[in-house]
Amino acid sequence: MYCYKLLLAYDGTYYGGWQVQPNAPSIQAHLQKAIQTFLNQELIRVIGSGRTDAGVHAVGQVAHFKSEQMIDLNRLRFSLNGLLPKDIRVKKIDHVLPSFHSQYSAIGKEYHYHLYLDPVMDPFRRLYCWHVLRRLDLELLQQAATLFVGTHDFTSFANESHLGSAARNAVRTLYRLDMHPTQGGIRLEFEGDGFLYKMVRNIVGTLIDVASLRKKIEEIQTIFAAKDRQLASSAAPPQGLFLMRVDYPEEVR
Amino acid sequence: MYCYKLLLAYDGTYYGGWQVQPNAPSIQAHLQKAIQTFLNQELIRVIGSGRTDAGVHAVGQVAHFKSEQMIDLNRLRFSLNGLLPKDIRVKKIDHVLPSFHSQYSAIGKEYHYHLYLDPVMDPFRRLYCWHVLRRLDLELLQQAATLFVGTHDFTSFANESHLGSAARNAVRTLYRLDMHPTQGGIRLEFEGDGFLYKMVRNIVGTLIDVASLRKKIEEIQTIFAAKDRQLASSAAPPQGLFLMRVDYPEEVR
Repeated sequence: MYCYKLLLAYDGTYYGGWQVQPNAPSIQAHLQKAIQTFLNQELIRVIGSGRTDAGVHAVGQVAHFKSEQMIDLNRLRFSLNGLLPKDIRVKKIDHVLPSFHSQYSAIGKEYHYHLYLDPVMDPFRRLYCWHVLRRLDLELLQQAATLFVGTHDFTSFANESHLGSAARNAVRTLYRLDMHPTQGGIRLEFEGDGFLYKMVRNIVGTLIDVASLRKKIEEIQTIFAAKDRQLASSAAPPQGLFLMRVDYPEEVR
Repeated sequence: MYCYKLLLAYDGTYYGGWQVQPNAPSIQAHLQKAIQTFLNQELIRVIGSGRTDAGVHAVGQVAHFKSEQMIDLNRLRFSLNGLLPKDIRVKKIDHVLPSFHSQYSAIGKEYHYHLYLDPVMDPFRRLYCWHVLRRLDLELLQQAATLFVGTHDFTSFANESHLGSAARNAVRTLYRLDMHPTQGGIRLEFEGDGFLYKMVRNIVGTLIDVASLRKKIEEIQTIFAAKDRQLASSAAPPQGLFLMRVDYPEEVR
């Protein structure tokens, strides 16, 4: 068996998300079909580092699959990019050890969330930002952001996934949550050892409520302590979110 | 009569171009409808600085219309952005003298053309670049570009528009044609006193043929001299083209 690691970029606008599902096109389904076509219908399963929701984008998603065939990597990349829709691209393919698993081997991830704050939206960024029309106190946003950095139980900022997650450990470490100015808005950068379902979008929703004075900054500690999703704000919309990078330890790369 | 000048941005992907036409949605038709709705069905006509073709984008298109109503500019902008599709935005509205005409008063324009040269297309730029897979000699491209700068008869680089243009003077001055590196490609910047129909795209098509050694750089002078559209290369595709700015003299602004 050979194991192949794929580095992927996709525009999530027209998909129901990463995962195969009955009523919407998915990135996983398109990839699986393209790879099976290339492999002469050998049955394979493409596994991603994590699901991205409908409308969420990826600049550096990682996936893997196993095949009995030894494939030339350049030929595979070229063919897949020919078979896939143009909003899904395979940037790179590597051989990895059979022990590699895009989800279980991952030790870190980076996400970016784009906010657009100018009253008139840039038409070229309408599908790639959350257009926030409320007046924001950016210093307060910055202060609130630092409260999320470090090791916490993020239960209050995680949605129950439909796969069920009740028993899962919700302690995660956020290495950094930085704010960068962009043209017309800001970009929030999240780096951590792992992220729960909708965690980035729930944190962004809460940060915007704090920065627009709908929630007090002191409430953040209370929300953390309560371990109750009901207390945090609504999730920020999907189109502002980008999965930028997935990290793996040296030994499996 | 009051005259209003609109500064517009639009993503041209889903339109048949600027101009009202029978079988495709147009920017002009959407704008005209939105303005007339705002003006309680007063009949007005929106005139643009020039047509942009199907798939061509604008960051700084200018248009104007005349109305018998004195309108609050902020309220007009806010309402139009509410009525228009999200890929057409009104960035700014100004009062101008009745002598202002977005097309006839224009004294200069800037266009950008985006080329993507990496073998794997960035999925977020697929609708905003020409993906050129030929190997290019960028120094040769730069050299060829300088041959277009200055005052020339651009007949060989202009398509006949369906409005007819046989009698028109095709002498135009290109102030600059610069090349800038971008992530994965280059951007060509054109600034001139005016542009003929498809002129930028025809020049880009010819530049790429020269840079990929399909045409000799010496042929450019011959093509200029022949005043024959058949000699220049095919037009570069529309999605790489952006109308960036339209200039007007002080006295009408």
